Amino acid sequence: MPVRLIDSLASTAPLAEVFSDGSILQALLDFETALARVESRLGIIPAHAAEAIAAVANPSNFDIAQLSEKTLRAGTPSIPLVKALTQLVRGRDAEAANFVHWGATSQDASDSALALLLKRAQPIIESDLARAQSALHALSEKHKATTMLGRTLLQAAPPITFGLKTAGWFAAIRRGQQRLSSAFAAAFILQFGGAVGTLAALGAQGPRVAEELAIELGLTVPEAPWHAHRDRLAALMCACAVLTGSVGKIARDISLLMQNEVGEVAEPESEGRGGSSTMPHKRNPIGCTVIIAAAGRMPGLIASYLSTMVQEHERSIGGSQSEWPTVAAVIQSTGLAAASMAEISEGLTADPERMREHLEATRGAIYAEKATMLLAAKIGREEAHRLVQEATRRAGAQNRKLAQVLREMPEATKHLANSALDNLAVAEDYLGAAEYFRQRLLHKSDTAIKKD
Amino acid sequence: MPVRLIDSLASTAPLAEVFSDGSILQALLDFETALARVESRLGIIPAHAAEAIAAVANPSNFDIAQLSEKTLRAGTPSIPLVKALTQLVRGRDAEAANFVHWGATSQDASDSALALLLKRAQPIIESDLARAQSALHALSEKHKATTMLGRTLLQAAPPITFGLKTAGWFAAIRRGQQRLSSAFAAAFILQFGGAVGTLAALGAQGPRVAEELAIELGLTVPEAPWHAHRDRLAALMCACAVLTGSVGKIARDISLLMQNEVGEVAEPESEGRGGSSTMPHKRNPIGCTVIIAAAGRMPGLIASYLSTMVQEHERSIGGSQSEWPTVAAVIQSTGLAAASMAEISEGLTADPERMREHLEATRGAIYAEKATMLLAAKIGREEAHRLVQEATRRAGAQNRKLAQVLREMPEATKHLANSALDNLAVAEDYLGAAEYFRQRLLHKSDTAIKKD
Amino acid sequence: MPVRLIDSLASTAPLAEVFSDGSILQALLDFETALARVESRLGIIPAHAAEAIAAVANPSNFDIAQLSEKTLRAGTPSIPLVKALTQLVRGRDAEAANFVHWGATSQDASDSALALLLKRAQPIIESDLARAQSALHALSEKHKATTMLGRTLLQAAPPITFGLKTAGWFAAIRRGQQRLSSAFAAAFILQFGGAVGTLAALGAQGPRVAEELAIELGLTVPEAPWHAHRDRLAALMCACAVLTGSVGKIARDISLLMQNEVGEVAEPESEGRGGSSTMPHKRNPIGCTVIIAAAGRMPGLIASYLSTMVQEHERSIGGSQSEWPTVAAVIQSTGLAAASMAEISEGLTADPERMREHLEATRGAIYAEKATMLLAAKIGREEAHRLVQEATRRAGAQNRKLAQVLREMPEATKHLANSALDNLAVAEDYLGAAEYFRQRLLHKSDTAIKKD
Amino acid sequence: MPVRLIDSLASTAPLAEVFSDGSILQALLDFETALARVESRLGIIPAHAAEAIAAVANPSNFDIAQLSEKTLRAGTPSIPLVKALTQLVRGRDAEAANFVHWGATSQDASDSALALLLKRAQPIIESDLARAQSALHALSEKHKATTMLGRTLLQAAPPITFGLKTAGWFAAIRRGQQRLSSAFAAAFILQFGGAVGTLAALGAQGPRVAEELAIELGLTVPEAPWHAHRDRLAALMCACAVLTGSVGKIARDISLLMQNEVGEVAEPESEGRGGSSTMPHKRNPIGCTVIIAAAGRMPGLIASYLSTMVQEHERSIGGSQSEWPTVAAVIQSTGLAAASMAEISEGLTADPERMREHLEATRGAIYAEKATMLLAAKIGREEAHRLVQEATRRAGAQNRKLAQVLREMPEATKHLANSALDNLAVAEDYLGAAEYFRQRLLHKSDTAIKKD
Repeated sequence: MPVRLIDSLASTAPLAEVFSDGSILQALLDFETALARVESRLGIIPAHAAEAIAAVANPSNFDIAQLSEKTLRAGTPSIPLVKALTQLVRGRDAEAANFVHWGATSQDASDSALALLLKRAQPIIESDLARAQSALHALSEKHKATTMLGRTLLQAAPPITFGLKTAGWFAAIRRGQQRLSSAFAAAFILQFGGAVGTLAALGAQGPRVAEELAIELGLTVPEAPWHAHRDRLAALMCACAVLTGSVGKIARDISLLMQNEVGEVAEPESEGRGGSSTMPHKRNPIGCTVIIAAAGRMPGLIASYLSTMVQEHERSIGGSQSEWPTVAAVIQSTGLAAASMAEISEGLTADPERMREHLEATRGAIYAEKATMLLAAKIGREEAHRLVQEATRRAGAQNRKLAQVLREMPEATKHLANSALDNLAVAEDYLGAAEYFRQRLLHKSDTAIKKD
Repeated sequence: MPVRLIDSLASTAPLAEVFSDGSILQALLDFETALARVESRLGIIPAHAAEAIAAVANPSNFDIAQLSEKTLRAGTPSIPLVKALTQLVRGRDAEAANFVHWGATSQDASDSALALLLKRAQPIIESDLARAQSALHALSEKHKATTMLGRTLLQAAPPITFGLKTAGWFAAIRRGQQRLSSAFAAAFILQFGGAVGTLAALGAQGPRVAEELAIELGLTVPEAPWHAHRDRLAALMCACAVLTGSVGKIARDISLLMQNEVGEVAEPESEGRGGSSTMPHKRNPIGCTVIIAAAGRMPGLIASYLSTMVQEHERSIGGSQSEWPTVAAVIQSTGLAAASMAEISEGLTADPERMREHLEATRGAIYAEKATMLLAAKIGREEAHRLVQEATRRAGAQNRKLAQVLREMPEATKHLANSALDNLAVAEDYLGAAEYFRQRLLHKSDTAIKKD
Repeated sequence: MPVRLIDSLASTAPLAEVFSDGSILQALLDFETALARVESRLGIIPAHAAEAIAAVANPSNFDIAQLSEKTLRAGTPSIPLVKALTQLVRGRDAEAANFVHWGATSQDASDSALALLLKRAQPIIESDLARAQSALHALSEKHKATTMLGRTLLQAAPPITFGLKTAGWFAAIRRGQQRLSSAFAAAFILQFGGAVGTLAALGAQGPRVAEELAIELGLTVPEAPWHAHRDRLAALMCACAVLTGSVGKIARDISLLMQNEVGEVAEPESEGRGGSSTMPHKRNPIGCTVIIAAAGRMPGLIASYLSTMVQEHERSIGGSQSEWPTVAAVIQSTGLAAASMAEISEGLTADPERMREHLEATRGAIYAEKATMLLAAKIGREEAHRLVQEATRRAGAQNRKLAQVLREMPEATKHLANSALDNLAVAEDYLGAAEYFRQRLLHKSDTAIKKD
Repeated sequence: MPVRLIDSLASTAPLAEVFSDGSILQALLDFETALARVESRLGIIPAHAAEAIAAVANPSNFDIAQLSEKTLRAGTPSIPLVKALTQLVRGRDAEAANFVHWGATSQDASDSALALLLKRAQPIIESDLARAQSALHALSEKHKATTMLGRTLLQAAPPITFGLKTAGWFAAIRRGQQRLSSAFAAAFILQFGGAVGTLAALGAQGPRVAEELAIELGLTVPEAPWHAHRDRLAALMCACAVLTGSVGKIARDISLLMQNEVGEVAEPESEGRGGSSTMPHKRNPIGCTVIIAAAGRMPGLIASYLSTMVQEHERSIGGSQSEWPTVAAVIQSTGLAAASMAEISEGLTADPERMREHLEATRGAIYAEKATMLLAAKIGREEAHRLVQEATRRAGAQNRKLAQVLREMPEATKHLANSALDNLAVAEDYLGAAEYFRQRLLHKSDTAIKKD
């Protein structure tokens, strides 16, 4: 089952498979089969009915085209599916046909099926996130001493290490993945409430059936049916969006570092990847591209989901029904971002020499802050700022080094030792707590520090 | 090609078809074929090359699964497609293989193909909008004298006519459809700029090829290539959203009027439509449901599109690449809303008796405004408001008619003639300009009236 | 400081106050003062400097109009603020002026100030959420046996209790509030990284200053500076949105139940609340209105926040700078929804009689499911569904009770005891697990039930 | 009235003024005054009443804090405003107090006031757009022959001219401004329908009052009242978003060209603009920053607006009430983007030398496409692509020029004349239709070319 062309830049194949016709049908049938099995075990329906249902509940027995067409008329896939399933069961065991979908409502099936699909999607996404974290962790360790320009507002700023930068990327993915894991767990939840969430059709046995059904399907039992309360799913969608936003930030950084004029890192090369139909010289940052595209679609998708939370009464009109394509798009975009980030970070090459060249190319201007701090202790911050700004301007205009220009300014030399000026532009001398923070990013979490 | 299950409540079949693999592939091939034909006509490539390209450019010759997979690696469908096409051409005419995609860049093909797909989608949507307008027009004429409750903030208010209400619906769709038509027309636009939008690879012949290519494809020639300027498409997406918002408002109204406690209108019934898997008595407003769902997804989809307008330089990273699923979802949701509204409005039944019952059930409270206006001329608006509010409260508490209560209040009878009180609750007497506005809605447009 | 007119339906006064000029200025000054205090304590700047800074760091000493104007030119409020503060300090202690903002960057001040503002907002919102939960809990207990219509797709469905419905509302708010609390806690986080997040200007003392500064401000120390990593704030915004979506769902329910034709509950009345400028009889659901409005704005606001997560390098261009109005709008909308829900739920009146009337008005049609289940055990679910659907149709057409019609259908009486038909339409007999679920909603959380 | 600190990076002062308390109050009072004047002229209310109303309808007579507080309780600013106005009128002319707000409903006042505010905003925005267009036009003319790198997917591509690039920017703003003008014009529309849009309280005179009132206020008369049909405003919001998206694209381009490593253009410098609180050497692209921030907020704001289009019946619950802050934010963001773009484009400096350096720095790699086309005519496109790709790789690895490498490859020299290789890397020789398109962008619009 290939990814459709329309989605070919918006999903990986495994996640497209999760939301394929066959997979959805299977999940819906899993619900019906498990329900029958549980109800038979509890003596609510005959054992042979459960057997007959299980026997025919195979996606290959169903006509997807018909199901799809009838779904639009019925407003839910469950109605035509249950009808078709009942027909099949009847063909095998006429009496059994009476016990299909016993005590459930359409949304019980479709929401529980959605939970099952999400459960299939999670390991796919999380394994890619784990790969990305592991690769970024290694990159950070490898480049803990590789100095490079810090860049703020797209302008050159004092130095950092590439190790610190990648550690920041790593920690952002780790935080996002932790939120995602929790949100996924909270969304693996049974829906089973019958028509209005009371399971009235099952009399006193409703809660028992619900518990067994959850076990059967590997889902959690919620406090109560949640047909019109979508907060757990909304929280999952949001966790996807926050993670994808962080991955998008990393891709943005990498794509900027890959500009020809910068050229400090490069996405891995491979056959068929990142070429151009017309320009043989191009190495396009395709991995970053699909991530940035995913991060661009995501905020709107989340808005779509959130705006359908305002649902009417026990089951809504147009709320849950609008969710499926949105949920699929969110999960697929998240998974594509994760997969692409895994691939990029595992193959990312860095060019410490180019990094150093760009540090040098600033001719010390990026140490203006440092010069200011050195002077400020003597002549005050504002006066120092003014002085260094003037020196910076002169250095820029004359294409000279900041330290050289300062050396010629008596106000500066009066307060700055020669050695200070000699070392002004040594990146390693102006890294502050870069390594301290890098290690915390790799190894710690935010620490609550309270006043006692 | 059935609608996929995941989209089964989010698209009609004809619009799913427009964005199907076969249709996309055809559109991409149409571009390549037309390009070759034009270039051959202008003597840029040999005639036999154009023939060979046309001969093999058939979707059935391509492996969608492979194309889709390679698209994700290439970052665009055009690269693998052109490669596969070239392979096929070579099989037929080795020399011709040199002239595939001559002078074009990937995005030329994908954007022009998108324009072709939009062109296929438009008549489908517009014909449903025409059906809806025609049906609503007829409903308005039929019910021009059918009085019903006005309702503000979901509370009973003075009377309107059902004819006025449906005329308001009609005019909203008409305005939306006019905006949509213009936006569609502006988006049926050729993309043809080569690598950076200069058509340099075609030397001096670029503009001529562009013009002929546009004619060949039935598209407009833009001022210039627009790879990173997506405003025309953005404007089309917005026009879809505004229309769908209006259709959503109508569906919201209808679904509220269909509540059991209201029951003033009903969606048409038909086999397999609006039933419940568990509740045999249900007639669910399925048409409204899918419309409201579409209108719920739409704002987020538009945000997704708009947020990718900020594209880099001559062709962006992650901008245009993220568009296809968004554009498809917008067009499909719009078309589903239009189709469903056409079906609903053609079969909508109204119950003038229930409408009248609800007018009566207010016991005249909704004429409190009228009573206030009558009294205000005599005792002032505020005093009148106070007096009528008191009467309304009393009438409510005692389950009596407002006119009756007023008749017992000397402050009121002093200023209100008996006849005025007799006619207080005659809906037909308090319709104001309802019929005037109804006719304008059916026949006029907003009129600019300027001070001279 | 009143709420501005433009926001008067979009914020409560206390939350407007949190984001007022004075409050923002105070938070920015709190950062500068605490920084000086800590640096003086650690011997980095002289003690008299910290004293001088603290002495003048009073909002009343600043010209807001100038600050605001200069902020737009500087791209951050901190630059003009620090300049003005330095000027003031100089007036008091010329040497001290050198040590203002020592070692910090603009975004350190603005992000930490934002955290302080959020910390002020939290208790305001949470106390309203606590009020709402407490009131809904009490409503649920009071109405645990009050039966009413379940409603699905805005159509009458089998009975529930008003206690179950309100328990569902309660639990949704509780879940939302729990998510919100966690997200708030994670966002009360210091920003302190200097120009590029290395605190290089403070040499080896950076981390120590950060820790002390966090204690001083009552904030958490993050793993590392997070200038361009906004995931914690994004997660807080999302938690606000999910909660507001849930509150919006409750307001939607209440507003529907308040329709004149339904009239089962009413918002509390009070002077100046919910009237109409023209219609003295109106009692508009104003509390629900502002909640639904807030829930309508929210998804888009979240999209705005999320779309700025893709930030460049160490500090972004246009990312963090676009956040403030979005964050304020999100927090204010959330707080308004919470406050309004608190007020509504504390004063909500229910009309059990109207609820019962609507149950009766269905003439038993809502028990069609029950009749089907009773029959299905005998004649199969599909045949039973068909039979009861026919009976329901007949009952509807003839304005008779479903039980009466069934009594005349031999296929039904053959399988249904007289007593079953007598009790068919007793709501209390068809509540299933309503009370069980109600108690779980009030007292439990989702329980993970695992297969062993 | 300064811009509030919270909005200081999100609005210009003139547009903050438009939505200030005083301005809103004035617009609401303008409506009430004009209504009274017209009704007096038509003999509906006494002349002295209109005079008294006009006499006191001055913003300075009102207590904004009280109005704002009461608005939240009333659900609309009009109710407390009309009450306060009536009180003031009564103090001057007791009888006149009876005729305040005669025949209007709250939303008539608030929607018409909104139209008046929009009318004040338009010229502010359009004049900045005109400045930007004029400056970009001049830049394009000045740099029509300035060659620079084309850049696709953030990678170097064949040359363009800076004149073509700026012409593309110009035309995008022109198209956006044209859409905006039309949308503004359609939104300058009177709202006047009374309680339910029938103007019943004015009897037969309603339409006449509406027409005169529109003239008085300088607004258009709509087909009919449009309380719950918000499509015209939605279309205006969308036009703002599309324009801001285009401006955002330009700001993105400029900010990328301003990177230190690129340095091809620079925002204008001025006092207090774009500095850093810590880094004296910085020249931050502040103008681009606030534009990109505005373009980042916009899609979500549009989603907020669109999602409230689904409004109930004659006047909605939570629809129109949620609009004001959204509309203000959209207009202010659009205006800030326009103002900032005007300032940037008027002062933008370009560095043709740096542009040329970057062309050279590619060592001809960007002419790989050209070389391919030259060879393709001889040896076929695919073989040529392969050959040139190999040459490009070799040139990259050896830091040599593409032409040099090709000169050493017999497969190339066999088909390429020496002169062709000599001129391979002359940018001026590979501009294709750049100048043709530049002139069309400056002077033409999209041309519909139809097959005859």
